[in-house]
Amino acid sequence: MSKLVGVLGGMGPMATADFFRKLVEETPATHDRDHVPVIIYSVPQIPSRDKAITSGGESPLPQMLAGMHALKKQNVDFVVIPCNTAHYWYEDLCREGGLPILHIVDAVRDELSNGHAVEGPIGLLSTEATLLSGIYRDRLADRGIELMVNTQEERDEFINPAIEWVKCGRLPEAGRAVDRAVARLLDRGAQKLILGCTELPVALEAIASPRMGSCIDATRALARASVRRARG
Amino acid sequence: MSKLVGVLGGMGPMATADFFRKLVEETPATHDRDHVPVIIYSVPQIPSRDKAITSGGESPLPQMLAGMHALKKQNVDFVVIPCNTAHYWYEDLCREGGLPILHIVDAVRDELSNGHAVEGPIGLLSTEATLLSGIYRDRLADRGIELMVNTQEERDEFINPAIEWVKCGRLPEAGRAVDRAVARLLDRGAQKLILGCTELPVALEAIASPRMGSCIDATRALARASVRRARG
Repeated sequence: MSKLVGVLGGMGPMATADFFRKLVEETPATHDRDHVPVIIYSVPQIPSRDKAITSGGESPLPQMLAGMHALKKQNVDFVVIPCNTAHYWYEDLCREGGLPILHIVDAVRDELSNGHAVEGPIGLLSTEATLLSGIYRDRLADRGIELMVNTQEERDEFINPAIEWVKCGRLPEAGRAVDRAVARLLDRGAQKLILGCTELPVALEAIASPRMGSCIDATRALARASVRRARG
Repeated sequence: MSKLVGVLGGMGPMATADFFRKLVEETPATHDRDHVPVIIYSVPQIPSRDKAITSGGESPLPQMLAGMHALKKQNVDFVVIPCNTAHYWYEDLCREGGLPILHIVDAVRDELSNGHAVEGPIGLLSTEATLLSGIYRDRLADRGIELMVNTQEERDEFINPAIEWVKCGRLPEAGRAVDRAVARLLDRGAQKLILGCTELPVALEAIASPRMGSCIDATRALARASVRRARG
């Protein structure tokens, strides 16, 4: 019997929808009933995670906790959050939300252990807020992985506009921008790249970029880890 | 302020994920907060709607009502069900579920009124159970539309296998089968086709069939109607 998965979503909505599709895709199933049961809370009326971290904007924590409480009322067994930056509040959410949360970076770690083992530096494409939060650095520290990040200039030119474009449905433009950011890190010697913001795979897939083959999609990693945990 | 949408999903899970993505795509938005807030209940451990209708199998109504009650607990404003066959129980769900439900065929009606006005017969691709339920015939009756349906042989050869293939992730095979069923109805003179089973657009889109241009996607119609209703 599968566990009931709770999704704290809406950050953003397209990324949540992308996670849901990948959860279905990653479940070995021959019938509907083989699929993982899931409750998705996708309420995007929530302050910017990015602004709260980088410029002291309003905290999104109260709205995230409202989502956790909604999921708790539905008796979900564990929660996943298809937004990397939101994991800045991971400890608060675990402590005050009263539910176990599968950390997105732990899901990426699992991918690195399973067939994605690489020599040499691994690139990380993310928001500035995710970088500042240190979640990838901290949770991958004991793996001896050299992380290579995008520059502020690359974030300003490619990553940040791409994220905004995904949020308003301009996917091909977003895809081309992300593709250029990926190319820059590969040129500088990254062996693999972590797409560490859940808008980025949506963008790259919209243009069917061949560079997806060099990437570890944190959203798909989270989906795969969710299926493993749900089927326990 | 947008209304909170409840989705009674899981019938099947891929169709629910497809609806969610289309809900996001169909929302004019420049920021996350412009998107429609939504709670999705996707619990696919539920008896087959098809077997209950065509061969006296176990009724899925109790599980569907459990989903309605879960959504009611979340204070959703209205419910949508991205499964055509499930609308066989529409009146029961409205009466016993205690929430208004936006009917999928009413959403298709809206599409027929808005830019899809056609002369001549309209094809309907659906399960046998949806045909038997009469939801399209009854709700489109006053429009004077001549409905042309697929034959039992076409359902057995193309539609039913395609639906099963979508449920186990074999999308390209499913797409080719649905495409042939669409071609048959167009050959017989259908001017437009309603994809009246939510697995069918997932299949056709997986092969990027040019015949999508001749189709009215009931899932996308429901997404568009949901956005209109949510934004009031």
